[in-house]
Amino acid sequence: MANARIALDAFGGDSCPGPQIEGALQAVRTGGVDVVLVGDEQKLKTALDALARDWTSLPIRIHHAPDVITMQDSPSKAVRGKPSASMPQCFELVKTGDADAVVSAGNSGAMLACGLFKYRRIKGVDRPALVTSTPTRNGKLTAFLDVGANVDCKPVNLVQFAVLGAVYAGFKHGRTRPNVGLLSNGSEDGKGTELTRVAHQLLREHPSEAFEYAGYAEGSDLMAGAVDVMVTDGFTGNIALKVMEATGRTIGGWLKDAIIGSTRSKMGALLMKPALMELRSALDPDVYGAAPLLGVRGLAFICHGSASANAIAHSLEFAGRSVSEKLAPQLEAAVAQHKPLFDAAKAAENAS
Amino acid sequence: MANARIALDAFGGDSCPGPQIEGALQAVRTGGVDVVLVGDEQKLKTALDALARDWTSLPIRIHHAPDVITMQDSPSKAVRGKPSASMPQCFELVKTGDADAVVSAGNSGAMLACGLFKYRRIKGVDRPALVTSTPTRNGKLTAFLDVGANVDCKPVNLVQFAVLGAVYAGFKHGRTRPNVGLLSNGSEDGKGTELTRVAHQLLREHPSEAFEYAGYAEGSDLMAGAVDVMVTDGFTGNIALKVMEATGRTIGGWLKDAIIGSTRSKMGALLMKPALMELRSALDPDVYGAAPLLGVRGLAFICHGSASANAIAHSLEFAGRSVSEKLAPQLEAAVAQHKPLFDAAKAAENAS
Repeated sequence: MANARIALDAFGGDSCPGPQIEGALQAVRTGGVDVVLVGDEQKLKTALDALARDWTSLPIRIHHAPDVITMQDSPSKAVRGKPSASMPQCFELVKTGDADAVVSAGNSGAMLACGLFKYRRIKGVDRPALVTSTPTRNGKLTAFLDVGANVDCKPVNLVQFAVLGAVYAGFKHGRTRPNVGLLSNGSEDGKGTELTRVAHQLLREHPSEAFEYAGYAEGSDLMAGAVDVMVTDGFTGNIALKVMEATGRTIGGWLKDAIIGSTRSKMGALLMKPALMELRSALDPDVYGAAPLLGVRGLAFICHGSASANAIAHSLEFAGRSVSEKLAPQLEAAVAQHKPLFDAAKAAENAS
Repeated sequence: MANARIALDAFGGDSCPGPQIEGALQAVRTGGVDVVLVGDEQKLKTALDALARDWTSLPIRIHHAPDVITMQDSPSKAVRGKPSASMPQCFELVKTGDADAVVSAGNSGAMLACGLFKYRRIKGVDRPALVTSTPTRNGKLTAFLDVGANVDCKPVNLVQFAVLGAVYAGFKHGRTRPNVGLLSNGSEDGKGTELTRVAHQLLREHPSEAFEYAGYAEGSDLMAGAVDVMVTDGFTGNIALKVMEATGRTIGGWLKDAIIGSTRSKMGALLMKPALMELRSALDPDVYGAAPLLGVRGLAFICHGSASANAIAHSLEFAGRSVSEKLAPQLEAAVAQHKPLFDAAKAAENAS
């Protein structure tokens, strides 16, 4: 079977194109994926020549895109205003059959817009969701969505996120019939907002063969590993994710302060170094990889703006595996299979 | 000036009445507050006799309440179903003029209901909010609200929370003209939900002398100390707070695992012990004290269910300070002063 071909936005990310080019080289050398570096051809050639004289013999090629989507650009710039920018050009490559998936560490709002408008939605999905994998106390990962694609959600959106998230947890984390929690301010039925209460009832009343609905879950359950999939709207999900990351950074900073506070602590930290490094990697967002946009008719993976070459390489490999193991058709099949649930959600919406 | 008299719900909390009785003794011995222990008289007498033979000479007394609000009780139980339970009896003491404020580590939903229905709202406040103090990287505390009183909010509620939170940050954290952020999924004006966008515009267009509106703030700003007051709805706030606490616990657990993983790490941890204990106290929810319910016509403080005797004592002292330094009248004055802002918020709501 031929390698999956991944279009990598070489000019998206905080310090692009360095980590992008190094990550691409790392991924193609590991094998399993072909990479199309998308961006200014001359700049990319110069950088590749400097880094790897043999690059022309590797499964890596350049697709010229003269323009760049900046972090300040509105999402619409990516879909209309700058058609020759590296990000939209990645999606064009998939549309023309020259690539199988897109990876970018650039403007995430622009990536969402490209995913939505260039790929279009899967038939039966009203809104796509951005999913990430969050670490838990017991070491297994939780699929957490939506972490920012849709801030104003309706019950049908949350119900669809449950289905998409369950497929993803099965695919990425190897869960069979994962359990799905709905993020709420308490576990009792009376808790939640108008939005979550309707979604909660729908998920309870329409059991699925694909996942087990575990009911309401709390903010503390996210890191406890109590659920395989945690569903919420994109506003709450974005905030919860950022609070989690910031808490980790803050504690890391305090720990550093505590260490440098005394000679005794410094000596202690030296002895603890291997253990502390392990702890640090448990919190490293790079480890959890790129966040795919689920619910669109194509594969798009959004990396952290600060993604390292290593993180880019892992994302390319994961994108490759998503292509070869057919994540996209799995998602489409699950959506079709859950049509009765989605229809019920829409009926509930119209009735209210 | 006479001491403030605090009604303490002796039968609210995970391991009550132990920490409640010990905390009350600690607070009255420190001085500054009189405590009314509310609960089963015989049980309280027996426990007090065992702990402190001299208790009858201390400014502590018992108010008999034969019933208890459990964690399973619905909020309405506290206001109607169990009038003789310790929690509602605390509020009755304030109503009859026999106490000045209420402290409880019991069922927080029931506390909110008591606050709302026994005290009633401050004139001009549509919904009260629960506020907590969260730790930040630079050591100063952020007043974070609403962390769970109202899940379905309107723009006018968020605007009122900004005013209440600003008064609280001034009172508790000593901020003059604190800066107030509105929690959102991004800092740009186009971000946020329908709810936050209206509130954002209202706060921008109606500058206040009491606080500076700093605009949208992100989940990561909560622990960065970027704002003195962080405003959000009770659903998002509850989840953000629980995610923050759970992240701290999870990292603490990982650190423990890392320490006991090798002899070398154990030796290192021994050397680092003073530094690690300091870190632990930075994360201890007990340190941040009780969360008051703001916006009702009286003082009510909700402690963590797991609050230690020390935490209960601090909460009683803080409740005493809130009485003597007149937090309640300060809140009422600020609400009256911001009537034009609240009226504008209601007009915006009716127009949409």
